Amino acid sequence: MKRVNVALLGLGTVGTGTYKMLQSNQDVIARKTGTLFEVRRILVRDLTKKRKVEGVKHLLTTRFEDVLDAGVQVVIEAMGGIEPTRTYVMKAIEAGCHVVTANKELIAKHGVELEQLARGKGVQLLYEASVGGGIPVLGTLQHLLKANRIHKVSGIVNGTCNYILTQMSEYGRSFDSVLAEAQEKGYAEADPTADVEGFDSAHKLAILCRLAFGVDVAVDDIPRKGITDITVAELEIARRLGYSIKLLAQAEQYGEEGPVALQVAPTLVPLSHPLSGVRGVYNAIHVEGDVVQDVTLVGQGAGEQPTGSAVVEDLCNVYRLPALRAASLRRPMILPAGEESGIQFLLIETEEVLAADVADKWKADLLDTGIQVLDALIYPDHGRSHAAFLVRNWEPRLVSVLPVEWEVSIKRIITRPVLAASVAQEEKEVVSAGSVS
Amino acid sequence: MKRVNVALLGLGTVGTGTYKMLQSNQDVIARKTGTLFEVRRILVRDLTKKRKVEGVKHLLTTRFEDVLDAGVQVVIEAMGGIEPTRTYVMKAIEAGCHVVTANKELIAKHGVELEQLARGKGVQLLYEASVGGGIPVLGTLQHLLKANRIHKVSGIVNGTCNYILTQMSEYGRSFDSVLAEAQEKGYAEADPTADVEGFDSAHKLAILCRLAFGVDVAVDDIPRKGITDITVAELEIARRLGYSIKLLAQAEQYGEEGPVALQVAPTLVPLSHPLSGVRGVYNAIHVEGDVVQDVTLVGQGAGEQPTGSAVVEDLCNVYRLPALRAASLRRPMILPAGEESGIQFLLIETEEVLAADVADKWKADLLDTGIQVLDALIYPDHGRSHAAFLVRNWEPRLVSVLPVEWEVSIKRIITRPVLAASVAQEEKEVVSAGSVS
Ligand SMILES: NC(=O)c1ccc[n+]([C@@H]2O[C@H](COP(=O)([O-])OP(=O)(O)OC[C@H]3O[C@@H](n4cnc5c(N)ncnc54)[C@H](OP(=O)(O)O)[C@@H]3O)[C@@H](O)[C@H]2O)c1
Ligand SMILES: NC(=O)c1ccc[n+]([C@@H]2O[C@H](COP(=O)([O-])OP(=O)(O)OC[C@H]3O[C@@H](n4cnc5c(N)ncnc54)[C@H](OP(=O)(O)O)[C@@H]3O)[C@@H](O)[C@H]2O)c1
Repeated sequence: MKRVNVALLGLGTVGTGTYKMLQSNQDVIARKTGTLFEVRRILVRDLTKKRKVEGVKHLLTTRFEDVLDAGVQVVIEAMGGIEPTRTYVMKAIEAGCHVVTANKELIAKHGVELEQLARGKGVQLLYEASVGGGIPVLGTLQHLLKANRIHKVSGIVNGTCNYILTQMSEYGRSFDSVLAEAQEKGYAEADPTADVEGFDSAHKLAILCRLAFGVDVAVDDIPRKGITDITVAELEIARRLGYSIKLLAQAEQYGEEGPVALQVAPTLVPLSHPLSGVRGVYNAIHVEGDVVQDVTLVGQGAGEQPTGSAVVEDLCNVYRLPALRAASLRRPMILPAGEESGIQFLLIETEEVLAADVADKWKADLLDTGIQVLDALIYPDHGRSHAAFLVRNWEPRLVSVLPVEWEVSIKRIITRPVLAASVAQEEKEVVSAGSVS
Repeated sequence: MKRVNVALLGLGTVGTGTYKMLQSNQDVIARKTGTLFEVRRILVRDLTKKRKVEGVKHLLTTRFEDVLDAGVQVVIEAMGGIEPTRTYVMKAIEAGCHVVTANKELIAKHGVELEQLARGKGVQLLYEASVGGGIPVLGTLQHLLKANRIHKVSGIVNGTCNYILTQMSEYGRSFDSVLAEAQEKGYAEADPTADVEGFDSAHKLAILCRLAFGVDVAVDDIPRKGITDITVAELEIARRLGYSIKLLAQAEQYGEEGPVALQVAPTLVPLSHPLSGVRGVYNAIHVEGDVVQDVTLVGQGAGEQPTGSAVVEDLCNVYRLPALRAASLRRPMILPAGEESGIQFLLIETEEVLAADVADKWKADLLDTGIQVLDALIYPDHGRSHAAFLVRNWEPRLVSVLPVEWEVSIKRIITRPVLAASVAQEEKEVVSAGSVS
């Protein structure tokens, strides 16, 4: 087993997520990449601060020199800001360390020089976590779409803004009230300028342009407009015209040596466009290539876990370690369909018209059989009816336990699995419940 | 410049897309990977058939032996089916050739043995195009998410079924009529069984399980249900309950050595779930990892161009060629925001209430100024009004050319860019226009 020693600069949100994942997934990483990563030193500002992870006390230091003296091969930068971060990253590279960073501002402003330095030293500088958090955007652009000419990239790359716009549009809440709540919950910074004025999105757009088009764009040259002037009325008007409004970072190249149109701005997105339905703290990137046509990547763009994940994925890719899926394929036990899925859709088509109150009676009958009904609908259809139920059921075969005393002539009974809500939906439920009280 | 000789088995949809991309993007591939790929031989059944590409006559052969004699390093299999394809692929591997294939049935049923053979011979067997066409699903699972424990994969992996369900749900058309039209347009096969009964999705699910969980699942063990019994009424009922219905291929692993729940079935997907809004021929994969949480990839799952693109991307990855983005970064000319975007959103907030017919008058005024109005809405709001327009405008600064004779007191005027429709939407427009006539 290969061993790689690692240092962390910073143990805040991203540093903690990275550290935790290196502990929790050490086994899966070792198995898939044949490598054991070990954290040997962690640079922080304040040694006395309470940390969210156990057993790191002996690793902490406030002196950068200690990091370089620890004999590490990779430095993970999760401090943020430009200085002293840039100096530390340069020293790490000069000392022959690979560097993994989540710092979009640093990469947007000094990425070109840092990459040049790294190339000269024969080390890697990787920064997947800097754009789109856990979404493997940069890897996809660089390694999986390298035979396409990319001509356009559009992205929702700031989760705070997308969360605010989603809340305003879905619950009619004002910008100020959502922002205040987001700050309280830690989704938004105390100083939200970088997010709501689009600076953060502009940093990410500069990085995307470099990888998608091979062009070097100065952050200050990107036309930029934030979301502070958007009202609930405007969101509603846009929706009635068939659009949602998203803070989009867009870049389009006109010909391979041609000009680039760039902007960060609240943009009307047709409701049927893949970016339109991206809600809450989710980020998404829409890439248009000349042959592949369009590919959209959606996921969580920030937060301890998704960002930590992207950092650790980069770490595995520093050595271009193959994902070993070798001889050891397992033949698993296969569970029968539906058995594990709690919620099912039950559709009963009858030969006659049902009264609307049948739903209540049947709901009671189902409950008597131990089946909980979450939602029900009687739908008349050309002299017949459909009775539809969303049920929570734990029996392997739902149909076999249906009450028999429903004396209507039934044409057919259909059951279908129901997909569980995703993380974004659950979070929405929590937030909306919160806003009611 | 490194040179790699390539042979194609098959010159149908996928073979043609691959050949065309190798021609059209030879320059970008050479620049990014430092490699020149040249097609030296193409295996077909019928030498006299008219081909969709020029200048290939001298490359065609009907004898597989000619392919191996052509001194190629990579064989691209785009024939389909199990035999004689499997035998050819094995012979190619045994002759020391790397193999790239789009054949999901072959990889689902014989992928394990073929990979073993390839490993023994020290060659690559790549098959990105076999699942999700142009979407880099397999690359993402293998190379960009290797430090995560994947516990669930859900996908819309058959474009024909998704197209049929989208048309049924959005236009109230019957299954039979959409299928017939899709067959006529070439979106569906003459024998649609593999698609509409879920066999194709099951093949793809078996491949996904292998890469996501490292388990080997026999295609016949996958519980499978097709979409032939779905009615427009059922889709409408599901929508009213807050769901769309999609043909989903799902696999969930319970613990690392635990059982796997698998199924291909029409499934109710909450309208707010990232998979719910995936329309038309688009495919999508939703991956849940333990740390990254969820990532969704959306794109075109089939067709000459997207599939050809995936094949060529694999070809570049056979040699794990880095995407060179070296010293040559260009500082591009940057276009001012909005100038190139034809359609703009124009929102005028007034201090007084506007009559509904103001929209028509203002539309005429805008047209007089050379601004075409695509849509308009007067929206009253607490004793004031908003007049909203979608306009097609070519002036750099829309606001500067607005008519001055609108004698209402205006609170503010906002303009926003509008994102152009994606490929899927345009295609929908075409199809719906067609279905009207
Ligand atoms: N938060 C996210 O979800 C997210 C997502 C993507 C990218 N990023 C990027 O990741 C980077 C880190 O963000 P974060 O949210 O993790 O920041 P954070 O929570 O503020 O943590 C910063 C950490 O760096 C340490 N630090 C800061 N300045 C230092 C200095 N001069 N010397 C020594 N240690 C110093 C701090 O030490 P103390 O703990 O002692 O104060 C702290 O542990 C930023 O570039 C950010 O843009 C963040
Ligand atoms: N179509 C898609 O969008 C798509 C997407 C993803 C994956 N795939 C997969 O890609 C593969 C190819 O699909 P396709 O749509 O390109 O098929 P296709 O259009 O039917 O083309 C098949 C090609 O293979 C040749 N061929 C077939 N059997 C042969 C034999 N025994 N000897 C020599 N040549 C033979 C045919 O020659 P002739 O031209 O002389 O008849 C034809 O050129 C299949 O495995 C399919 O599942 C297709």
